[in-house]
Amino acid sequence: MADFSSLDRYLEQNRQGHLNELLELLRIESVSADPTKASAMSQAAIWVKNRFVQMGLECELIEGNGPSMVYAESPKVPGAPTVLVYGHYDVQPCDPLDLWKTPPFEPTIRDGNIYARGATDDKGQMLTHVQSLAAWMATSQKLPLQVKFLIEGEEEKGSEVLGHALPGLKEKLACDVIVISDSSQYGPGQPAITYGLRGIAYFELRVYGPKADLHSGSFGGAVTNPALALARLLTEMKNADGKIQLEGFYDSVKPLQESEREMWKCLDFSDEAFAKQLGVTELTGEQGFTTLERRWARPTFDVHGLMGGYQGEGGKTIIPSWAGAKISFRLVPDQDPATVAKQLQDFVSKHTPRGVTVEVIDLHGGCGVVVDPNSRFMGGARKAVEEGFGKAPVLIREGGSIPIVAEMVALLGCDVLLMGWGLDDDGAHSPNEKFCLEDYYRGIRASSRLWEYLAS
Amino acid sequence: MADFSSLDRYLEQNRQGHLNELLELLRIESVSADPTKASAMSQAAIWVKNRFVQMGLECELIEGNGPSMVYAESPKVPGAPTVLVYGHYDVQPCDPLDLWKTPPFEPTIRDGNIYARGATDDKGQMLTHVQSLAAWMATSQKLPLQVKFLIEGEEEKGSEVLGHALPGLKEKLACDVIVISDSSQYGPGQPAITYGLRGIAYFELRVYGPKADLHSGSFGGAVTNPALALARLLTEMKNADGKIQLEGFYDSVKPLQESEREMWKCLDFSDEAFAKQLGVTELTGEQGFTTLERRWARPTFDVHGLMGGYQGEGGKTIIPSWAGAKISFRLVPDQDPATVAKQLQDFVSKHTPRGVTVEVIDLHGGCGVVVDPNSRFMGGARKAVEEGFGKAPVLIREGGSIPIVAEMVALLGCDVLLMGWGLDDDGAHSPNEKFCLEDYYRGIRASSRLWEYLAS
Repeated sequence: MADFSSLDRYLEQNRQGHLNELLELLRIESVSADPTKASAMSQAAIWVKNRFVQMGLECELIEGNGPSMVYAESPKVPGAPTVLVYGHYDVQPCDPLDLWKTPPFEPTIRDGNIYARGATDDKGQMLTHVQSLAAWMATSQKLPLQVKFLIEGEEEKGSEVLGHALPGLKEKLACDVIVISDSSQYGPGQPAITYGLRGIAYFELRVYGPKADLHSGSFGGAVTNPALALARLLTEMKNADGKIQLEGFYDSVKPLQESEREMWKCLDFSDEAFAKQLGVTELTGEQGFTTLERRWARPTFDVHGLMGGYQGEGGKTIIPSWAGAKISFRLVPDQDPATVAKQLQDFVSKHTPRGVTVEVIDLHGGCGVVVDPNSRFMGGARKAVEEGFGKAPVLIREGGSIPIVAEMVALLGCDVLLMGWGLDDDGAHSPNEKFCLEDYYRGIRASSRLWEYLAS
Repeated sequence: MADFSSLDRYLEQNRQGHLNELLELLRIESVSADPTKASAMSQAAIWVKNRFVQMGLECELIEGNGPSMVYAESPKVPGAPTVLVYGHYDVQPCDPLDLWKTPPFEPTIRDGNIYARGATDDKGQMLTHVQSLAAWMATSQKLPLQVKFLIEGEEEKGSEVLGHALPGLKEKLACDVIVISDSSQYGPGQPAITYGLRGIAYFELRVYGPKADLHSGSFGGAVTNPALALARLLTEMKNADGKIQLEGFYDSVKPLQESEREMWKCLDFSDEAFAKQLGVTELTGEQGFTTLERRWARPTFDVHGLMGGYQGEGGKTIIPSWAGAKISFRLVPDQDPATVAKQLQDFVSKHTPRGVTVEVIDLHGGCGVVVDPNSRFMGGARKAVEEGFGKAPVLIREGGSIPIVAEMVALLGCDVLLMGWGLDDDGAHSPNEKFCLEDYYRGIRASSRLWEYLAS
């Protein structure tokens, strides 16, 4: 067994420094979806790059038609594998702002958690690997393998820059395994390694009616109301049993394997407790599947936002000229976002109510991925997590999407390890996003073991 | 026949003054639905009051729990009837602001129209009666009947103050006929007298799901999406034939009279031209009725605004914690808003999807009204309009609502004359609201005849 004593001493002595650096990065308002935050985006990229420069890695900014990507690498180690750490410095938008107890870009520690937009998704989790490698570099231990980093700035809006650049980066990113910490543990005190992610196909629907808002008294009854037409269209997309109604939508969805269903049944999970945690009266979903199966391994349809007409105080009596919705489908592996886009367009063409026109805007998409739970690096990863967190991880899937993962795996022909340090209730895309501070330190410690155990 | 020569001379000489006064009033941002505009609301009330004071009427502000109402009266004329002019100085909200070619409170004249929020609804139309009475007072002609004015500041949000005050104002408002100009001519060059208005029942629906926005990847599939639940609820409220699905909704709706249907069939109306005017691909609506019947004499259901979730640039992948809609039902006479509110609550209770809760907020309501086209004042009104506009008016109904009208008619036991000077395409509740300047002057002239002809 390797001797981690000087590394552990370094980690212990640098707890405050590691926290300060996380706070610094969290203060940068790097919202990739918001065009007014372009300068904060640059600032975040440069912050990450400087961190790599500081620890002595070869480093560069990869530029594209959008936010810069930060690339860094340690020297090649002959005979040892190469690990690519993928993460992102961009964050989700913050609204509704008024629901934040403390401002999203003024990180605040309460009850052992650090509250800020991006705390868990993904600045905090991503930094664990940066800090652990810095610790290796600082304590002058010879790295047992080559570590590459690719930290991008568009994960929250579909990784377009990286997607376009990817084919040209095949040599630079060549690796044996990708490591990503951008997901959750199974629960507090129960770490996990995630072997599957869902894909996503995200759209905006816009329903257009009269050329201007109309007085609903004078005109009500004569024209199709675009808001109501939108409601009808959305409603018809999913039946009462929770089945999505796009033609052909389930054609490439493979049945769940019995072994997976059995494995998940052994996990500690209570529908009742989960409903209580989320604050809903009851859980609902596709007939014939458990809650974990619905979240991890079945496709879904969700509406993310409704727009159109009057939203102010009191009442305004108009037939709005248009109405819109942000929607997405979560996909399972083998479902292709481009095919779903076509199925949606076909559905809309067939179901558009009379008297309105509908536009489908394709915002972004990405495939899901499932990796072999018995891959060659899994043993080392499990050991690293167990040492970092003090408990053996369980094997799970995750309902979220990291659209670029499937593309990278396909291009690079490598394995992937999804090692989430977050928690389900971190509020990754919600107000009051948080990250457990102790999990930040545990993640750094697990990562510090990872380089050693993946090499052997 | 009365001699109107000195009155007409006065009107001719004061065209510019009448315009200036309209511009002044239009510059006041009296949006009753917007709590931040309270001081503009007072300013508008005082402006109207000062105008009455200036012309020598007895005048007062009637205060309640909301915007002041302006009341004025000329002396009682023994043996002659009393007319009550009802109007309002408040206006609709202005959004979407970016669709206005010129700012809503900077009135601008283009192509013979005056563009401003409130131009037609109701500042411009209401002022015609103020100006015509001022002309009578200024030319020292003895008024042939008593004229009372009640100009309120809450018509656009349901006339709550007036509604509460009404029983106590029975004596003050006592009259033989109410005159209201807050509707439209049948078309350009074709004036009309309106003998029916629809009622309204206006609500906000709020659908509550999880206690906070959830990541739609991690949680999608496990909970009911509040935006989708709202869409389903709205969709189920009206079937494909345009019939409203609240239980008992049509119970008190009387069939249209054949004589009315025949009269309206004689009106010059083209579905094709109307669709083109509104910019819709085709007209739609309740099966079995013509477009005019649907707009004037059948109840309808409309959605005025959709709210909830992410509405910004790009995509955000959340299950929103809540979603909402502003909705209303237009009612025909004999339908009671309070009954409809109960029917809606029942419907919502029965149709609320599992996993969410729904709140019904009753915003405002008012009954419709239909008056006898052969009432004792109709002859004089038709003559006045013909002289003012140079063409005999047709008799029509109107789809809009002036909720307080039915209450006043019931309380005061009087007739009502709805003499609209606006046009269908004035955009009463839309961006770029306008009023034809020449119709403003024609309205003043028609009103100047009205006092004489209603007296005889």
